[in-house]
Amino acid sequence: MRQVYLDNAATTPLLPEVREAMLPYLGELFGNPSCLHSWGDAAREAVERAREQVAQLIGAEAEEIIFTGSGTESNNFAIKGLALAQQAKGKHVVVSAVEHFSVLYSARTLEKWGFELTLVPVDKYGVVDPDEVRRNLRKDTILVSVMHANAEVGTIEPIEEIARITRENGILFHTDAVATAGTIPVKVKELGVDTLSLAGNQFYGPKGVGALWVRKGVRIIPLLDGGVQEGGRRAGTENVPAIVGLGKAAELARMDMPARIKHLTHLRDRLLTELPRKIERVVVTGHPQNRLPGNASFCVEFIEGESMLMWLNSQGVAVTSGSACTSRALKASHVLLAMGLPHALAQGSILFTLGLDNTDEDIDYVLEVLPPIVDRLRQMSPLYAKFTKAGKGGK
Amino acid sequence: MRQVYLDNAATTPLLPEVREAMLPYLGELFGNPSCLHSWGDAAREAVERAREQVAQLIGAEAEEIIFTGSGTESNNFAIKGLALAQQAKGKHVVVSAVEHFSVLYSARTLEKWGFELTLVPVDKYGVVDPDEVRRNLRKDTILVSVMHANAEVGTIEPIEEIARITRENGILFHTDAVATAGTIPVKVKELGVDTLSLAGNQFYGPKGVGALWVRKGVRIIPLLDGGVQEGGRRAGTENVPAIVGLGKAAELARMDMPARIKHLTHLRDRLLTELPRKIERVVVTGHPQNRLPGNASFCVEFIEGESMLMWLNSQGVAVTSGSACTSRALKASHVLLAMGLPHALAQGSILFTLGLDNTDEDIDYVLEVLPPIVDRLRQMSPLYAKFTKAGKGGK
Repeated sequence: MRQVYLDNAATTPLLPEVREAMLPYLGELFGNPSCLHSWGDAAREAVERAREQVAQLIGAEAEEIIFTGSGTESNNFAIKGLALAQQAKGKHVVVSAVEHFSVLYSARTLEKWGFELTLVPVDKYGVVDPDEVRRNLRKDTILVSVMHANAEVGTIEPIEEIARITRENGILFHTDAVATAGTIPVKVKELGVDTLSLAGNQFYGPKGVGALWVRKGVRIIPLLDGGVQEGGRRAGTENVPAIVGLGKAAELARMDMPARIKHLTHLRDRLLTELPRKIERVVVTGHPQNRLPGNASFCVEFIEGESMLMWLNSQGVAVTSGSACTSRALKASHVLLAMGLPHALAQGSILFTLGLDNTDEDIDYVLEVLPPIVDRLRQMSPLYAKFTKAGKGGK
Repeated sequence: MRQVYLDNAATTPLLPEVREAMLPYLGELFGNPSCLHSWGDAAREAVERAREQVAQLIGAEAEEIIFTGSGTESNNFAIKGLALAQQAKGKHVVVSAVEHFSVLYSARTLEKWGFELTLVPVDKYGVVDPDEVRRNLRKDTILVSVMHANAEVGTIEPIEEIARITRENGILFHTDAVATAGTIPVKVKELGVDTLSLAGNQFYGPKGVGALWVRKGVRIIPLLDGGVQEGGRRAGTENVPAIVGLGKAAELARMDMPARIKHLTHLRDRLLTELPRKIERVVVTGHPQNRLPGNASFCVEFIEGESMLMWLNSQGVAVTSGSACTSRALKASHVLLAMGLPHALAQGSILFTLGLDNTDEDIDYVLEVLPPIVDRLRQMSPLYAKFTKAGKGGK
């Protein structure tokens, strides 16, 4: 059976060049970068080279990059670390309603610590209105966090405009760029933010590594206390092989980005246009234009996303019905609900996230196997039966 | 030139079997364990197998193991997470003066959050007196943390006895077993603790992965908020290759432990007995008997540990002068100072930590190259000149 992986938002595979770059550091170059001998030197040089590579990807200075263990850790570090560092100035934090749970629940933790939280709503495409951010700022607002793009619906947010507002008001601005760094151009100076998160396994680098970019001069309280690694801002022995892999992945992403975007956009647009022609009552979710090149997200009426996912899996196709981090919770996506989708429709969410390995044949295959799955599931749906009886639809 | 790595406390190399076990997960088995399709299933099964392997190493239940990104993260998680979960009962925390900085500075962070901290002293061998712990307990004490063994001086602490005291008083007890798990027998039920940290790169597993064992029923507040991974207690995409490597390393450590201990103890005892015969005014630090099998630590009078380290490095020998996590700080070790060593002597610290690859020839080589290095450095030492002039020593 054909195997088609369309869940690249959950994680991408390693590029062979990335794996090759990592292997020596899983072998004889096993030193601890903090050590003052030759083994340590080799490891330290590799980490510093990777730091340069990551910095170049986002147009930053190497010393502004802090390596972490994941995008989730980077977001926890930013939200908690910036808020704690600023708390003498005020205790109000503003985040968008469609943030990844690592931002949203970090902000919830701040509430337990005595901070106040405002969630900024989004429109039906999942877009944060910068004026809405402005309206929610207060004298005691110390931090705003809006993601660069939403991995579930692909919508890219107007970060530059929001950054202008936070800057005018002297408020720190974090953006979660886990879905965009390494995928579309991300330049910290153009975005105008103060801190930015990214993760290796989102652009063909390894799991177990992320980075937080912290603009020079911005104070942040460490999340992990201990040794003096990462300039005293993130304790713990550096995960050298993964950091090397992240650096290599950053270098490759920077060089290949235009070709990658072209490839992914072509496949995405096929799904976005052809799937609704093959299946009735399908809604494209997210912004029609300003969306990630590899993201094709839909809601299919009258059926559960998880059922489609399971049936597609039995046909060799990997997709998801929302974020990987929440798939085990089997709840309707907070992103779709924030966009105003009815609960029942949000349950029918299905998300295709394309990768470099995908081909037109993969798309042909999905367009062939999905419609009969939807038909079969709808035959079993009481809601669909009611709907067709009422004469409002049906083939 | 002979290459002799004697800095295994900083990090061990990967065993070839561990690397082999990891490679498929850096290749086609790249899935995200949270995903509900076949790619996710394969990753999830691998993570759960590793969880069993780690649980077996320490005599625990698989569901009590939480994978983290490092020993440092495990310690931060335990100290902060247990204290925050217990704060309604009291805000007093007791830790030993010789803890790793990931415990010590996490406890310092608790102080900033309004907790009170008591440091329990150690004797000249670095041993915590259980009665000293008992004397420092208060009505509002909620947490005690004493490490299983100290990586810098090798001393193994009387954890069982301390655990009896904390249990009698209904107080939670964390032990940092990063230096012992996978090296000497560590059984959580025998130790009687409530939580226990370990790290992969301490026993021939990978960097970038650790674990926190949390006894069933013990409440802990997550350090990393976000997705529902690790039973909702540690968010972030699982570092599958590293977790698989940790599991394999745990399995190998469990099987080979007696042979490993015998090998390391033999080499260690050669250093502990022969080095002081070859170099005058050398002090063995740590406990004479209750010490880690691979730890030979000394203080050499009249010279700086870092100078010895650099000269040994030029001879192909990797050692350290204290903990890797603090080597860049170039301060006298807080462990040696807590043991009552004079500051000047503590500056002359040199630490050999042996590994499975080391041989008798390695020890011969060190015993050959170190004495002339010490001689040369002492010739340059004003303190040594003063000492010899006073007629109190000299060859």
